[in-house]
Amino acid sequence: MLFDGTTFRILDQTLLPHQQKWLICNDTETLIDIISRLAIRGAPAIGLSASILLAILAEQGEGQQELLKKAETLKAVRPTAVNVINNVDEMISALQSRNYIEAAVATAEKLYEEDVQLCRNIAKLGAAIIRPGEKILTHCNTGSLATAGCGTAMGILAEAQQCYGDIFVWVDETRPLLQGGRLTAWECGILGISHSIICDSTAALLMQQGDVDRIFVGSDRIAVNGDFANKIGTYSLAVLAKYHSIPFYVAAPLTTVDPNCPAASEIPLEMRDECEVKGVNTSTGRCSWCPPESPAYNPAFDITPAELVTAWILDTGVFTRSELGKPHWWKNKKGQDGQPVKFL
Amino acid sequence: MLFDGTTFRILDQTLLPHQQKWLICNDTETLIDIISRLAIRGAPAIGLSASILLAILAEQGEGQQELLKKAETLKAVRPTAVNVINNVDEMISALQSRNYIEAAVATAEKLYEEDVQLCRNIAKLGAAIIRPGEKILTHCNTGSLATAGCGTAMGILAEAQQCYGDIFVWVDETRPLLQGGRLTAWECGILGISHSIICDSTAALLMQQGDVDRIFVGSDRIAVNGDFANKIGTYSLAVLAKYHSIPFYVAAPLTTVDPNCPAASEIPLEMRDECEVKGVNTSTGRCSWCPPESPAYNPAFDITPAELVTAWILDTGVFTRSELGKPHWWKNKKGQDGQPVKFL
Repeated sequence: MLFDGTTFRILDQTLLPHQQKWLICNDTETLIDIISRLAIRGAPAIGLSASILLAILAEQGEGQQELLKKAETLKAVRPTAVNVINNVDEMISALQSRNYIEAAVATAEKLYEEDVQLCRNIAKLGAAIIRPGEKILTHCNTGSLATAGCGTAMGILAEAQQCYGDIFVWVDETRPLLQGGRLTAWECGILGISHSIICDSTAALLMQQGDVDRIFVGSDRIAVNGDFANKIGTYSLAVLAKYHSIPFYVAAPLTTVDPNCPAASEIPLEMRDECEVKGVNTSTGRCSWCPPESPAYNPAFDITPAELVTAWILDTGVFTRSELGKPHWWKNKKGQDGQPVKFL
Repeated sequence: MLFDGTTFRILDQTLLPHQQKWLICNDTETLIDIISRLAIRGAPAIGLSASILLAILAEQGEGQQELLKKAETLKAVRPTAVNVINNVDEMISALQSRNYIEAAVATAEKLYEEDVQLCRNIAKLGAAIIRPGEKILTHCNTGSLATAGCGTAMGILAEAQQCYGDIFVWVDETRPLLQGGRLTAWECGILGISHSIICDSTAALLMQQGDVDRIFVGSDRIAVNGDFANKIGTYSLAVLAKYHSIPFYVAAPLTTVDPNCPAASEIPLEMRDECEVKGVNTSTGRCSWCPPESPAYNPAFDITPAELVTAWILDTGVFTRSELGKPHWWKNKKGQDGQPVKFL
């Protein structure tokens, strides 16, 4: 994301790694389209793109009521990730104040800077778990493309590489939209991390062969009981990790915990168009290999129950399942502002 | 496969379902190329293509020693599937006899007709396990494209559909070469089976949701202890099935059991080129979406240990793990011809 004082630009992630094209985004309709077709993705990044655009529109003279209306439409754009809802809720509070322009800008800036710091904390906490020379498996993309900072799960891997210089990453290609094979592999290359791309279904064989020491994934929404939603394929990895006794970690900022969501059953799972499964559409070509008349089923996310998680790596600490009720496990903004903090 | 008396033709499965192109195959070099690039695939089908070509070459006047040399080269073409080795070994016995031309033709015809019958037996035995209205998950392609008959796992589904008319099949797309999304979906359409294509990593979510009643897969080689090799992703399904208490079956003809292979550790796993993971190459286009400098790891098969299998559906019967030592569990051809039959 870039803002030069007049134009807000977003890097089109659907074209990576082969093309770097910046999309101009000066209205909510455009942003909704950009988010819907995953030109920007990653729960923290989409939340921040929404808050930044609202601040820009406020600064450019958009009316208060209009801004509040637009904020509401942005909240619904992708149902599973809670960050966009959380961020826009903060923006709505700012936009309701008397000095709503200054408040909106200050809030958007605060959210952005906060995300950079949250990523840094997560990276430090998570990297301390990794040992030199370990082989780590990750799914989807959770790096700097997905956040304002160094990333969540990927930030941990970058930090571990910085510390030891010899970690190895198995990159799940992450069908259907290949965020692993396209984006995580690209980020590994930039960070100098030794890696290899695998089909998602190869992860089990690697675990069987003893070639995976730990698994780190991100999250789009964490329920208060520790259940969490993430890219389709995450639950599969969690079950396989349990079977092979491989530690399985979820890394996310506190802003990904949804205080209004007690458990998995309350997390909405986004269904996407079947064309994403029936072919690919990338910067180097598109093709559709299935019989046109065959239907396909395309849930974008799945839910991993808390019992399969070794630890939750939040910016506030590393929590095991027995620690889920600790003070910093989760608390919402209201709690931090002095209102009652709910615990499990 | 088609033979019109002069020309042997093989349907190019890499172009299915969008194009039906028959490849002319009148020498072993061409067949090795066709098999290597998976234009024909499926353990029984590649075994039969090898035996038929040897018989045709014998009939066309190729010398006995030359035929025996060619038979040996065919045996090595794909290391994991045992059927080609088994079939070619039978052809070698025939080619070593005095009337080697007649013997080769008779053996190739027998192997072909046997496979049709083996498939029929497997289909009947397997379909008896399925209940009306069940939702079945399958992986890769195991239908009439992969055998001389109705298929193995897919033959069972076709038979169940014939009996009940209301089964539903979840078709794993089966990365990297998409035999599920391209071929199994196509065969389901032809057979009138309700189905939906999924990304391989979606199977776990379906199991979690209670949407999978049983899983049927084929095999490229079964060890005497019941461990078996099959398309990459099969082991993942087996672990997930165990976790969710879903019955998991392997269906294959007796010719897929390797009497010389006591356990998984003796099954060679074929590694294939990384370009298959880094992109796709189909009849509707090709593209490569990964960073060119990122490596990929591409094992074509994995091994599922016997303890994860609910039952082995062979043409000779349905065997549970406690029945692995029964007389018809496995016996090699020598055993069937009157020589000592080895049991577990």
